[in-house]
Amino acid sequence: MFKINENFLKLPGSYLFSTIGKKVTAFKEQNPEKKIISLGIGDVTQPLAPAIIETLHGAVDDMSNAETFKGYAPDLGYEFLRTTIAQNDYKDHGCDISADEIFVSDGAKCDSGNIQEIFSQENKIAVCDPVYPVYVDSNVMAGRTGIYDTKSEVWSNVIYMPCTAENNFAPQLPKETPDIIYLCFPNNPTGATVNKAQLQEWVDYANKVGAVIIYDAAYEAYISEEDVPHSIYECDGARTCAIELRSFSKNAGFTGVRLGFTVIPKELKAGDVSLHSLWARRHGTKYNGAPYIVQKAGTAVYSEAGKAQLKEQVAYYMNNAKLVYDGLKSAGYTVSGGVNAPYIWLQTPNKMKSWDFFDYLLENANVVGTPGSGFGPSGEGYFRLTAFGSYENTVEAMNRIKAL
Amino acid sequence: MFKINENFLKLPGSYLFSTIGKKVTAFKEQNPEKKIISLGIGDVTQPLAPAIIETLHGAVDDMSNAETFKGYAPDLGYEFLRTTIAQNDYKDHGCDISADEIFVSDGAKCDSGNIQEIFSQENKIAVCDPVYPVYVDSNVMAGRTGIYDTKSEVWSNVIYMPCTAENNFAPQLPKETPDIIYLCFPNNPTGATVNKAQLQEWVDYANKVGAVIIYDAAYEAYISEEDVPHSIYECDGARTCAIELRSFSKNAGFTGVRLGFTVIPKELKAGDVSLHSLWARRHGTKYNGAPYIVQKAGTAVYSEAGKAQLKEQVAYYMNNAKLVYDGLKSAGYTVSGGVNAPYIWLQTPNKMKSWDFFDYLLENANVVGTPGSGFGPSGEGYFRLTAFGSYENTVEAMNRIKAL
Repeated sequence: MFKINENFLKLPGSYLFSTIGKKVTAFKEQNPEKKIISLGIGDVTQPLAPAIIETLHGAVDDMSNAETFKGYAPDLGYEFLRTTIAQNDYKDHGCDISADEIFVSDGAKCDSGNIQEIFSQENKIAVCDPVYPVYVDSNVMAGRTGIYDTKSEVWSNVIYMPCTAENNFAPQLPKETPDIIYLCFPNNPTGATVNKAQLQEWVDYANKVGAVIIYDAAYEAYISEEDVPHSIYECDGARTCAIELRSFSKNAGFTGVRLGFTVIPKELKAGDVSLHSLWARRHGTKYNGAPYIVQKAGTAVYSEAGKAQLKEQVAYYMNNAKLVYDGLKSAGYTVSGGVNAPYIWLQTPNKMKSWDFFDYLLENANVVGTPGSGFGPSGEGYFRLTAFGSYENTVEAMNRIKAL
Repeated sequence: MFKINENFLKLPGSYLFSTIGKKVTAFKEQNPEKKIISLGIGDVTQPLAPAIIETLHGAVDDMSNAETFKGYAPDLGYEFLRTTIAQNDYKDHGCDISADEIFVSDGAKCDSGNIQEIFSQENKIAVCDPVYPVYVDSNVMAGRTGIYDTKSEVWSNVIYMPCTAENNFAPQLPKETPDIIYLCFPNNPTGATVNKAQLQEWVDYANKVGAVIIYDAAYEAYISEEDVPHSIYECDGARTCAIELRSFSKNAGFTGVRLGFTVIPKELKAGDVSLHSLWARRHGTKYNGAPYIVQKAGTAVYSEAGKAQLKEQVAYYMNNAKLVYDGLKSAGYTVSGGVNAPYIWLQTPNKMKSWDFFDYLLENANVVGTPGSGFGPSGEGYFRLTAFGSYENTVEAMNRIKAL
């Protein structure tokens, strides 16, 4: 008789955003006349930039002709995209990363969920708390996280690094030594960042204790302050300890287009074995590449026109971020984030539970946000709003919240 | 110190098609004047059908406009595609499968590699031998396959079901009871099929012993004979024992577009736990949906125009299959497949080793095929050619082979 992976059953509830989706659907059914504004899921709303649309049409035409038709993509992504990424995201910023250290994928969610496969089950992970739930959940499924305590909402075999108002939402080096450290800056959900000196400390620490850092830089396009690193490879020594995940979802509006990449420097090794070779094997065996038309669209992100258009798009969202930040402040909330990230992080009023505040906001302002506790135990008492709505909806949502 | 997944190191060599790619590249570099014809990797060459191109352009336009722009897709795929699949691939063929039992993905390779995650490490798998290498390789990575014997090329903890000329390339029920049975019909690489009565035997067996069948039907569009089932759900009782994998790669030329789906009937359970809920959780946690434009393109496959155009495309490849089959026969080879599948399976002359024949063909005819041994130990002494080349290249390749 076949047996299931029992680790799946340890996961409490469903994936955070599935739960939110179900709650919103139920509310809509009961209140069909209410106009709900979602500042919940971090999904973009602005259409693809004209340069990207044009490239997509061109790539579709390529597929209509036997001479230019493309079948299976190369395992690690098309050279044309990998070279463009290496130049624009790394070499132009003084980071020593070459095209063949870049693995193109269909997005950072898949990569952040799948990357743990190349590590032994015996590794202990450390995560910022709160953080994007995929890091912990994918390790739960792999059996690395021990037992879940439903009361404290803590896994017995995970090192939590609290990021709260007390430490300005920046994690401290953990007391217990982890094997794998997940870092996400600009942080989802708090919107907090670390400066270059702080990140260098993490790189030095990882090299010292032999840990690997999985650095999720999905939101780097939103960095507005000078001293905040866009890539972990800006730090000395990162090539021997860090994997970086990047996404096209937020800088180019690709949440429904699906494109991302993972960087694994060739020096990153366990003994003789390079993690690069393991991930290449994983890609080669279980993945068949991102669609040609999507990889082509990726190159448009780096064109002159694309860059200019996307700079405007990011500015549009960051204007929303400022609206939300200022609006919440003026309504008396304690707020952070929103300066180097499209996320605004607020403390719930009167120490309300995160999910209670979710219900309160949905019912009274018809605004959807994300409960902080969904991102980890230290997220309890916090709440996330995103800047990814339209300008009009953002203004309207803030008016409703201020009127409460 | 972090530790790697040692199971990865057990894999012998690299992924089959990566190895072939490297060999061909090396040959090209040394022989730049030679015109190589690839009948190796099962990659299509005909451009996308006009109905699909038109839909793709329309979907790209949807992404250019805030009103019709699409962000994250629903976890399990767009309703418009799942409903279309349920109707066309199942209900129209008398199979009881509903839209919410269909999980849209970016292709059958990912699904066949990832599906093992929902099962315990303790399960024992059975595979046809030879077969598509992803089933075994993904289980190696998960640590289910025991030790590899480099001489016999056999894993100690895998049940091999030989499919050779002796049994007309149809597997027999195994002596040892497996937990998970991978079946692929029409078979890759042999091109063999089973009839409905034979498949019913497998379904009955799986229900009796409590095994789950993972049924890969990626090549069903190539079935030309009456009594060959297109779906395992044509068999009674399949809803309690079978998962089906489908692909758009071969029926619609989507190898570079990336679209597939997995069917898990809700009755398929281990005790109280439905595999449907486990796979939904896996999708929700580690996957973010196939691109909107690609899912839209999927619907065009089922339109009136799309169906007519793709019927022609399949006929084009099957004409190639007949050319290869007849050509090899007339050159004195022992050949099978090619009738219900785009693959032709031949015995190497004079019991030559598969990889030796690969080198022989590459060097002397400049034709690339796939060594049978790459698909499993019983593939040794066999060789696969595909019908996916252009008509002109197929004719030319056969002329070269006949001239040897």
